[in-house]
Amino acid sequence: MKLHFGTAYYPEEMTRDRIRYDAELMRDAGLKYVRMVEFAWSHLEPQEDVFNFQWVHDAVDIFAEYGLKSILCTPTSAAPAWMCHKYPEILRMTRTGERAWFGKRDYTCYTSSRYRDFAIRMARKLAEDFKDDARIYAWQIDNEPGNSSFVECFCPDCQRKFRDYLRNKFGTLENLNKAWATEFWSGEFSDWDEIELDSYYDGSCSCRQYESDLFRSAQQAEFIRVQADAIREVIPGALIGTNNYAIADRYEGFEKLDFAGNDLYHKYLKYKPEKQARFRMNTDIYRCIRPGLSSWILETQIAPGWPVRDLSGFYLNFYIGHGYDYIFFFLWIDHPSGMEKNNFSIIGPAGKPGDKYNALKKLLQNTEAMLGGRELPPPQSDCAMIYDYRAHWLYATGSSAKAIFLENFSRENYNMLAQSAGSVACISSEADFSAYRLLVFPIQAYVSKELAQKLEDFVSSGGVLLMNGRTGLTDEYAKNLPCDGPQYLQRLLGISIGEYMEMDYTPDNQSANELPAFSPSKDFDHRNTIVSGTLSGEKVRGTISLWTASLDVEGAQVLMTFENTLLQGRPFLTCNRFGKGYALYYAADAVNKELLQKIVRHASRLAGFVEDIPEGCDLIRRGNILFASNFNQYPVEFKTKYNGNNILGKALSSDGRISLGDMESAVIEIE
Amino acid sequence: MKLHFGTAYYPEEMTRDRIRYDAELMRDAGLKYVRMVEFAWSHLEPQEDVFNFQWVHDAVDIFAEYGLKSILCTPTSAAPAWMCHKYPEILRMTRTGERAWFGKRDYTCYTSSRYRDFAIRMARKLAEDFKDDARIYAWQIDNEPGNSSFVECFCPDCQRKFRDYLRNKFGTLENLNKAWATEFWSGEFSDWDEIELDSYYDGSCSCRQYESDLFRSAQQAEFIRVQADAIREVIPGALIGTNNYAIADRYEGFEKLDFAGNDLYHKYLKYKPEKQARFRMNTDIYRCIRPGLSSWILETQIAPGWPVRDLSGFYLNFYIGHGYDYIFFFLWIDHPSGMEKNNFSIIGPAGKPGDKYNALKKLLQNTEAMLGGRELPPPQSDCAMIYDYRAHWLYATGSSAKAIFLENFSRENYNMLAQSAGSVACISSEADFSAYRLLVFPIQAYVSKELAQKLEDFVSSGGVLLMNGRTGLTDEYAKNLPCDGPQYLQRLLGISIGEYMEMDYTPDNQSANELPAFSPSKDFDHRNTIVSGTLSGEKVRGTISLWTASLDVEGAQVLMTFENTLLQGRPFLTCNRFGKGYALYYAADAVNKELLQKIVRHASRLAGFVEDIPEGCDLIRRGNILFASNFNQYPVEFKTKYNGNNILGKALSSDGRISLGDMESAVIEIE
Amino acid sequence: MKLHFGTAYYPEEMTRDRIRYDAELMRDAGLKYVRMVEFAWSHLEPQEDVFNFQWVHDAVDIFAEYGLKSILCTPTSAAPAWMCHKYPEILRMTRTGERAWFGKRDYTCYTSSRYRDFAIRMARKLAEDFKDDARIYAWQIDNEPGNSSFVECFCPDCQRKFRDYLRNKFGTLENLNKAWATEFWSGEFSDWDEIELDSYYDGSCSCRQYESDLFRSAQQAEFIRVQADAIREVIPGALIGTNNYAIADRYEGFEKLDFAGNDLYHKYLKYKPEKQARFRMNTDIYRCIRPGLSSWILETQIAPGWPVRDLSGFYLNFYIGHGYDYIFFFLWIDHPSGMEKNNFSIIGPAGKPGDKYNALKKLLQNTEAMLGGRELPPPQSDCAMIYDYRAHWLYATGSSAKAIFLENFSRENYNMLAQSAGSVACISSEADFSAYRLLVFPIQAYVSKELAQKLEDFVSSGGVLLMNGRTGLTDEYAKNLPCDGPQYLQRLLGISIGEYMEMDYTPDNQSANELPAFSPSKDFDHRNTIVSGTLSGEKVRGTISLWTASLDVEGAQVLMTFENTLLQGRPFLTCNRFGKGYALYYAADAVNKELLQKIVRHASRLAGFVEDIPEGCDLIRRGNILFASNFNQYPVEFKTKYNGNNILGKALSSDGRISLGDMESAVIEIE
Repeated sequence: MKLHFGTAYYPEEMTRDRIRYDAELMRDAGLKYVRMVEFAWSHLEPQEDVFNFQWVHDAVDIFAEYGLKSILCTPTSAAPAWMCHKYPEILRMTRTGERAWFGKRDYTCYTSSRYRDFAIRMARKLAEDFKDDARIYAWQIDNEPGNSSFVECFCPDCQRKFRDYLRNKFGTLENLNKAWATEFWSGEFSDWDEIELDSYYDGSCSCRQYESDLFRSAQQAEFIRVQADAIREVIPGALIGTNNYAIADRYEGFEKLDFAGNDLYHKYLKYKPEKQARFRMNTDIYRCIRPGLSSWILETQIAPGWPVRDLSGFYLNFYIGHGYDYIFFFLWIDHPSGMEKNNFSIIGPAGKPGDKYNALKKLLQNTEAMLGGRELPPPQSDCAMIYDYRAHWLYATGSSAKAIFLENFSRENYNMLAQSAGSVACISSEADFSAYRLLVFPIQAYVSKELAQKLEDFVSSGGVLLMNGRTGLTDEYAKNLPCDGPQYLQRLLGISIGEYMEMDYTPDNQSANELPAFSPSKDFDHRNTIVSGTLSGEKVRGTISLWTASLDVEGAQVLMTFENTLLQGRPFLTCNRFGKGYALYYAADAVNKELLQKIVRHASRLAGFVEDIPEGCDLIRRGNILFASNFNQYPVEFKTKYNGNNILGKALSSDGRISLGDMESAVIEIE
Repeated sequence: MKLHFGTAYYPEEMTRDRIRYDAELMRDAGLKYVRMVEFAWSHLEPQEDVFNFQWVHDAVDIFAEYGLKSILCTPTSAAPAWMCHKYPEILRMTRTGERAWFGKRDYTCYTSSRYRDFAIRMARKLAEDFKDDARIYAWQIDNEPGNSSFVECFCPDCQRKFRDYLRNKFGTLENLNKAWATEFWSGEFSDWDEIELDSYYDGSCSCRQYESDLFRSAQQAEFIRVQADAIREVIPGALIGTNNYAIADRYEGFEKLDFAGNDLYHKYLKYKPEKQARFRMNTDIYRCIRPGLSSWILETQIAPGWPVRDLSGFYLNFYIGHGYDYIFFFLWIDHPSGMEKNNFSIIGPAGKPGDKYNALKKLLQNTEAMLGGRELPPPQSDCAMIYDYRAHWLYATGSSAKAIFLENFSRENYNMLAQSAGSVACISSEADFSAYRLLVFPIQAYVSKELAQKLEDFVSSGGVLLMNGRTGLTDEYAKNLPCDGPQYLQRLLGISIGEYMEMDYTPDNQSANELPAFSPSKDFDHRNTIVSGTLSGEKVRGTISLWTASLDVEGAQVLMTFENTLLQGRPFLTCNRFGKGYALYYAADAVNKELLQKIVRHASRLAGFVEDIPEGCDLIRRGNILFASNFNQYPVEFKTKYNGNNILGKALSSDGRISLGDMESAVIEIE
Repeated sequence: MKLHFGTAYYPEEMTRDRIRYDAELMRDAGLKYVRMVEFAWSHLEPQEDVFNFQWVHDAVDIFAEYGLKSILCTPTSAAPAWMCHKYPEILRMTRTGERAWFGKRDYTCYTSSRYRDFAIRMARKLAEDFKDDARIYAWQIDNEPGNSSFVECFCPDCQRKFRDYLRNKFGTLENLNKAWATEFWSGEFSDWDEIELDSYYDGSCSCRQYESDLFRSAQQAEFIRVQADAIREVIPGALIGTNNYAIADRYEGFEKLDFAGNDLYHKYLKYKPEKQARFRMNTDIYRCIRPGLSSWILETQIAPGWPVRDLSGFYLNFYIGHGYDYIFFFLWIDHPSGMEKNNFSIIGPAGKPGDKYNALKKLLQNTEAMLGGRELPPPQSDCAMIYDYRAHWLYATGSSAKAIFLENFSRENYNMLAQSAGSVACISSEADFSAYRLLVFPIQAYVSKELAQKLEDFVSSGGVLLMNGRTGLTDEYAKNLPCDGPQYLQRLLGISIGEYMEMDYTPDNQSANELPAFSPSKDFDHRNTIVSGTLSGEKVRGTISLWTASLDVEGAQVLMTFENTLLQGRPFLTCNRFGKGYALYYAADAVNKELLQKIVRHASRLAGFVEDIPEGCDLIRRGNILFASNFNQYPVEFKTKYNGNNILGKALSSDGRISLGDMESAVIEIE
């Protein structure tokens, strides 16, 4: 196994001597890669049409002398002042016409033709300048696209291209009006020019809102892709990626790229279980975006910052266990000024190696010693959860449901699933399901015929599927389906949904503007809808919230029913034997945490999972190496099916039991 | 007694076959009325000057076949896209010039001449098309006027008409400057064009702020009225109303209309006592707006939603008891898309009758069986509370007092009053007081000579009047009066107020931006102003907040005094025998809840009320039928002066005791 | 000692008869001064070029008849409507171009050339009109400059002058780019016109943000100064000041003025210890701005308002003890309308003297009787804390540190220091340190060579200096210094800082947008960085947050070390014997409160302070009069080194013990 350690560097701020000094230190620490030139537009093109790339060549040269390869970025997340001043039309615009301003980053519009031209030209020029330089290992497009203070753009370019997009998609206004059911609240359009983008954050028109989400995602992805294309035209085999797509559909965003960078700072986790679970899920999303797509940690921290304990080693093992073989530490040395003048540097502003540098050096040596020589295949999980960005957006349309809920609910499903399966693949609904034994598929309001067929194939071949809530009740445009649901899934699930209703999602102590937490009340009184039944021989009882439905069973077995309300006695959780597998469904968007745990555990048992791993622990295999992590603030001990030696040197019990301290990991060679 | 049940329907989204299918179901459920065409402008006038009303005629025809009458709405709360695009001047504008946008509802300006012309033309055309159609039972203008995301408008039309309004009101700038005392903070105007609208939410200039409130209310009412006029010109006897005026003075808003629609969704009450009390008060406001004005529930829910218990029957009894004989359930079937695609439908999106439909059908049958054949007069209350919108606005002017307090304080007065009198009429200060024995009149900063005379007449004839706080200390323009107060009320109350002062209203744990709750601290320590005395033979003690004054007694009896502070020993609560009645006053804008209860109870005893009804219960009579409701989360039992049989079939004690479960009502035929 | 009592009056709202009536009452109450004409522009210049000052002369005449002197204000904090209407360019503008509006106050731009011309002309005209009037005692420029709803201005005038300011400061763009290290995030400028003002509240570019702060402060100060200059040109010896500078550097703002007005309303303190400490610190800042600058209380309240206890006497003693011999009560009589129509008036709106007037009269008589005849020198403190506005701004630049922390941390240092020294001088870093024995100097990121030399002189002469955190690590432009720190202080402190790092400042239960409180957790677990050692013979232990560093000792003694983290065993608190004094430093921006108390106490002991005064108490001397105040909600008793008689008449113990009730003060004649 080859581990690739790197860092981020800003030669535009440095002298040649300083670069040489740093390169030597990097080499000594065990680093092999340097990422640079992101944000450096004003240094690459100090005035319009005046280019200066020599300083980049110099840096690449110096680093190469010390055995370091370079990763070059396109600088498009920070347009230079001269460009913003001369071409204000490249700046983002609010719905009411206020332009963003120069000074932070990501103030420019992804759709703007003018800005795209600038971006493509810069990407091409960089590629041309470095096309013959073998020391350039890879290219990064932009930086963290979508990570902006200026969220959505409504500039004339965006509005015009949104109309083009719609014309292309629907052909005629009649089709569009029909697809969106624009009769609602006087919404019919009689001219293309009447149509404006809607907002994810303050949307009004469910279908137009959803289309706006799709359009914005596509524009963002295209902004990245045209730059990648420009580089590939010059350097056909270039290795190209970007990092931490925000807002966009990651599956779409990384579709044409070679690697997906994940920027992860454990500082922000703060020992909060919800944040840790969200973080772990995110790690599994980026590792599963697409078969063949390489997953990199493009930014992580070495400096301890907060928490004060240096957990770099803990997280490094976790990343490697999850298939991240490229790991870049951000950043080499503090910037002298700007928003990030105090960050997680390896070298402090004073410029000399100190405690942090020494800690990194030691960490890399230990890790290389432990894993450097091994051949490890990618990690593999036996169960998967679908994480579908578009499903989240669709869920967020309409009156009250908010995307954050589905995010939280997915995280809790992930959390519960990990307790049975050790690790969870987070995959697209377009992925191949055949590698998995269990598939948890949180609310998917729109289910296509193709997807339904794929799910039938999965279950009939022996898989176990768990679905819930308003699945299969919406069409591809976000409209409620005018027929019994769940569409295309009735046969598979063995049920039919005739009537359904939203429940309130605002806890008593929250204002209507606050986002719903994933926490229906545990109080079993008449203010709650209560469900009960028997799972795996155990009596279970729970409460539900957000949404529920009247189920009719058409073949499925009823495992749980409603205890009270208008739905008293009706089926709540059903299980349908379908071919060699099982398809389960429950009629709620949210259930209380204890009940969710029991439902997921039941599905896991049906799928043959027998492990019982404490919450907050992670267990993943790469070939004969098992990586175990305890994210809890307390020690844990649990049994695994493995025998082996902990290559970190810690004692292991002979019957497969692992004992881990708080925030401790184990790397085990299994027999 | 005739009960009128109806629903809301959107034929613009439906086929003729579907309408027929629905009409039959409605008839079978016991519905008699269908409200439609609200929001349908883009379907009525798909392009400028191109009208299509045939689909409305078709729907009216089909519903008539099934015995259903139609209520038509003017669609003015949602201007079509072509209009917003072509005439952007109709859109609302913020203070700094940002225009509202098409896509939600209520984005157009009530003042805009252009939009008014469109609105009047549409109203007239609808009236002309349906003037000979006897199946049209009534007309609704707009929908929930003022219920908008775009709160106040500052567009040039508004500014110009505000100046016209001021010119008309004051004649000369000299008069205006004097009336507003514009010398404060350099506020004098030397030209009409210098004057701009102020804001209710971010107002600065108390008098200009108050005039802006009055102007906006008048514009909103006029926007409704010109549409009603347009219909009446064509159909002289048309029955016309609207629903849920927001922002405006309801007395002004409904002045020229025939019925006042109240949209009430119990989902939002969430078992919170404050919300329940606010809801009950609102029900009593809409039933008392004007003698002869019919009060309708134009929207309420059947679907249980949250809370999960189906409380439709409980609320239906409550509405009927309070004189609402027209009750419309919102909505028949879910919209396929848009902001409200998940709402409280009778029929779910799948389109077939289910649990909710069946529950409604049964409810209406039961209610008809119970009350359908009886002749019930309107309900009558023996006590009243003044609820004066303009007094609320006036209270909100100036530095720190906020309207929300007076709203909360009125609610608490209502709450306490109901415990003595069972039900409370909430009336305008211009209403006839002679029907009541007790009048609670929370803070009325401006009291006209006419109002004072009316109050004297009321008390001298034997009425009991309870006033408090900064009553009678402000002139009609919101200025502090430069003389002892309370103006025109000194003789009636037997007191004189020479000096008064604001107290702090921000509790320690609130930020200055939060609105004051009605909850002066109960802590009897030196951080609070403490008052005490003897009421109805009982020693009482309480704390006050927000505002207080130095009273001089001029004839009144002192019932309570100040215990501490600069005011120690001074009168706090006074009672003046005036003619055959009593006029009470206390020198605080707020007192703690327990004290308020004792003061109101004392005034009630003086007025001859002897009942002692638990908090959260409601008792109201219509002829020989008594309606009792328990809004509490626990069972109650209390004595009434009545004997009778509960026609819901529940046992009653022989001595007039009513026993009610949590959220339970009783309908009793009294002897 | 001469006490100067006055009030605020608005003759523009009054008749001559009323003024005469009020003047008589003022005289009888013991008032000697009337401040007027602030905000009165629309009355002074009702139309452009039409001036009317006669009413001011009349008021001055009448007041003079009753022995009252006048203080005239320039009315520039409220431009009249005609001016805003005709010259909208004088109004402030947001970053995205929205103009402020007429109606509150302080809506005009300090930088605007047009507005400056108007302001200067008005100041000059007022001066010319009153230059020979000896009854004019002093002049106030503007009112509470910076106290605005419209915070920062980005109008074209501001942008243009900011560029002029930069051109003047840096000469060339090359210099500017270098000084600001604009290579960060594509920030290099190629043309002056590309540069725009940054924001204190939403800043992005640390150096440009800091320069924007400096520029805005300078513009605000200049706006005041040009008015003062205009008056001095006409009346060379005029006594000129202003009150409560917000936003600006007070040292700069008052540099050219004769007195500094402090507006203090104890209503807002609400018995909160943090607010009381903040209030006390503020009192000591304004008394120490500059030797020779007179400190006035230009606004304080007599009306009790909230808290309900009348604490006017308590605060009056406190003000006098702290050297405020001019005290103005705000306001004489309530305004009839406007934002402040309910305020802390002496006379209520009804216009007659009442309880509040009588309370004031009695208070002034008592105070005159007690202190009126004595000759008291200014108060003197033996210890000082540096309070440096620019250091606060500099601290706030960059990614995460926020100015509010340094404010809170300074307050806590003040709080702790007062417990050793009774009173604390809060001084500029440019002040003379020689009068003090102990100097606490919270984080000063930029330390000039001159300042370092001054500190060395102070310590070598026997002073004790306490510094901490990121002191001496930044250059004058807010850039991190590229070398070991603390710059220029290594010799004095006997340490060297090679590496430092930010810690997290967001407690678990706060959102990232909330400002950090000064309260690092006291939990001694692995989530905290723990430090320990021995101070004054006592074992101490504490936690730190926000920022820390690796210290190398170069001569200093180590008093405390790190218990855990990467820094385990390294020095935390050091003490360097330097000449006759001591220089202490600790490596954290924040420590928990108990530890801070122990560190400050240790430094105090080194400086020879032996007193042990309870938290929340204040002890200050003016000659032979000692003023003691207990701001706590409970009684205290403590020993002092004094003997004497309490001239308020209260018994004192013979051994110097003072016993004070809650919120009680003592004025003691010491022997």
